Amino acid sequence: MPKPLALVTRMDAATEAVWKDTLADALPEETILSFRDMSAEQRLQAELAIVANPDPAHVAELPNINWIHSLWAGVERLVAELGPDAAPIVRLVDPELARVMAEAVLAWTYYLHRDMPAYRLSQKKAEWAPRDYRHPRDVTVGLLGLGELGKAAADRLKGAGFNTIGWSRSPKVLGDIETVSGEGGFEHILGAADILVCLMPLTAETRGMLDARRLSQMKPGAAIINFARGPIIVDTDLIAALDAGRLSHAVLDVFAQEPLPATSPFWAHPSVTVLPHISGPTDRFTAAGIVAANIRQWRQTGKMPKTVDIKAGY
Amino acid sequence: MPKPLALVTRMDAATEAVWKDTLADALPEETILSFRDMSAEQRLQAELAIVANPDPAHVAELPNINWIHSLWAGVERLVAELGPDAAPIVRLVDPELARVMAEAVLAWTYYLHRDMPAYRLSQKKAEWAPRDYRHPRDVTVGLLGLGELGKAAADRLKGAGFNTIGWSRSPKVLGDIETVSGEGGFEHILGAADILVCLMPLTAETRGMLDARRLSQMKPGAAIINFARGPIIVDTDLIAALDAGRLSHAVLDVFAQEPLPATSPFWAHPSVTVLPHISGPTDRFTAAGIVAANIRQWRQTGKMPKTVDIKAGY
Repeated sequence: MPKPLALVTRMDAATEAVWKDTLADALPEETILSFRDMSAEQRLQAELAIVANPDPAHVAELPNINWIHSLWAGVERLVAELGPDAAPIVRLVDPELARVMAEAVLAWTYYLHRDMPAYRLSQKKAEWAPRDYRHPRDVTVGLLGLGELGKAAADRLKGAGFNTIGWSRSPKVLGDIETVSGEGGFEHILGAADILVCLMPLTAETRGMLDARRLSQMKPGAAIINFARGPIIVDTDLIAALDAGRLSHAVLDVFAQEPLPATSPFWAHPSVTVLPHISGPTDRFTAAGIVAANIRQWRQTGKMPKTVDIKAGY
Repeated sequence: MPKPLALVTRMDAATEAVWKDTLADALPEETILSFRDMSAEQRLQAELAIVANPDPAHVAELPNINWIHSLWAGVERLVAELGPDAAPIVRLVDPELARVMAEAVLAWTYYLHRDMPAYRLSQKKAEWAPRDYRHPRDVTVGLLGLGELGKAAADRLKGAGFNTIGWSRSPKVLGDIETVSGEGGFEHILGAADILVCLMPLTAETRGMLDARRLSQMKPGAAIINFARGPIIVDTDLIAALDAGRLSHAVLDVFAQEPLPATSPFWAHPSVTVLPHISGPTDRFTAAGIVAANIRQWRQTGKMPKTVDIKAGY
């Protein structure tokens, strides 16, 4: 019988139990134990940890794990909390997550393109105020970040006829989609995009990347969608740009603190759409299948899946 | 020199002048005159009328027109106002209109599917309340009407992964999209659709078609999108169904009276999204090109484009 796998989360017990069952269905040959139910001896035996936003002190009580599989795609908090000496981390790379995130990018791009926030304000005032229609070929959508999520989003936007530009730190080729990179490319995309979509991981480099200076380089009247991580944008600078009318709207799904505190000025801001981190929900079933395949491959071949580059942060 | 074409609209003079210029650019060989600028003699000479919501008394002052080209796709008001003895009517059939309408159907389907109205209400209360995500394959979108617009919308919905069903009065085959027809098919689609989209023309048959009885046959919690004509839905019955919580939301772009009067209960209804008839705006340039091609064909061959079936109303 293989040594146990530890499931370490900060979920409430009922939610964790649902995940544990789904993982057990996908990996019937393994013994998956919830960290909170494990004896001290079982914690010493555990060979692997499957984690979702775990308490780092709990992970530290599993000294013999070979590697850690995250149930989420975003691991910047995990990397920061576990520190450089932790076991290698494998993040979830789920094509279903890329599909649902690309769908969200298209859905909220349409939200802005088809003027839904403006029509909501008109409705509030009982005002019949049709706005001019713009063909999507005349609307430039700029994507920041061209990982799995950015690539999938670029495809959907391009397929919907938007003038799509993608930006990444180092040069990337993306079929027939225009891509730019580096500092020069960043300035270009800021100046060109009518709608700017954040899909970058949070790293030392991207933290605070969209600050007052960068926001002032954006096309006047542009809108912004943040589906990545809250701290990529400097909140106070964003609010100043919206208040000044330099930017028209922000759709924010991610925040420095989640749930967003009731005191946040975002809630009541007329040019902000607040979403409760729902753009890219993890699909429990596809996620469990991917985790199962990775663990099975390791059992059979000793080969670990691609692990997170701790220095890059993703 | 050919006899003049009369442009008859209820647009303000400046808007009509823009249309007249666009039509003149597309038809430089014709003499297009605004009805309001025409002498009595010119009105007798006019061979064709190009109309947009014209005053029927004005059209009656053009006794020698061979046919009438509408600049809009919806002609039910024109047919009703001109009566059965008017010249044959040609409506605008513009692939660009089908594209932009299909885009609107997808955009507001996402609006409902991705819970945008619910998140707006949560934001108003500063409430962090994520909702479960449903895969589009588990969301049934029912399309009422499978003309050019319905067909284009069905393709976009199917392409986005929604479980798409189309309904038409008489049976139609639509590639790999499930279609139903007639009374039995109507009951089926009402019971199956999570989101019901109206794209039917307004006719004697469709007027008041979605009344209390029909709305009560809809799937509990379903939502409705009306991008067709206001009188297809009985307003008071719709409000009763929304108030009772039987239907979750209505996106209304069309109304019995437009602009929607300030006294309408729709404006302030929490489960209604009011749009100012913007789902399918006519593109002036593609419309002018289509009108030009139809008129040229008639000049050269004497062949009139397909005209409106006055009895069917479209």
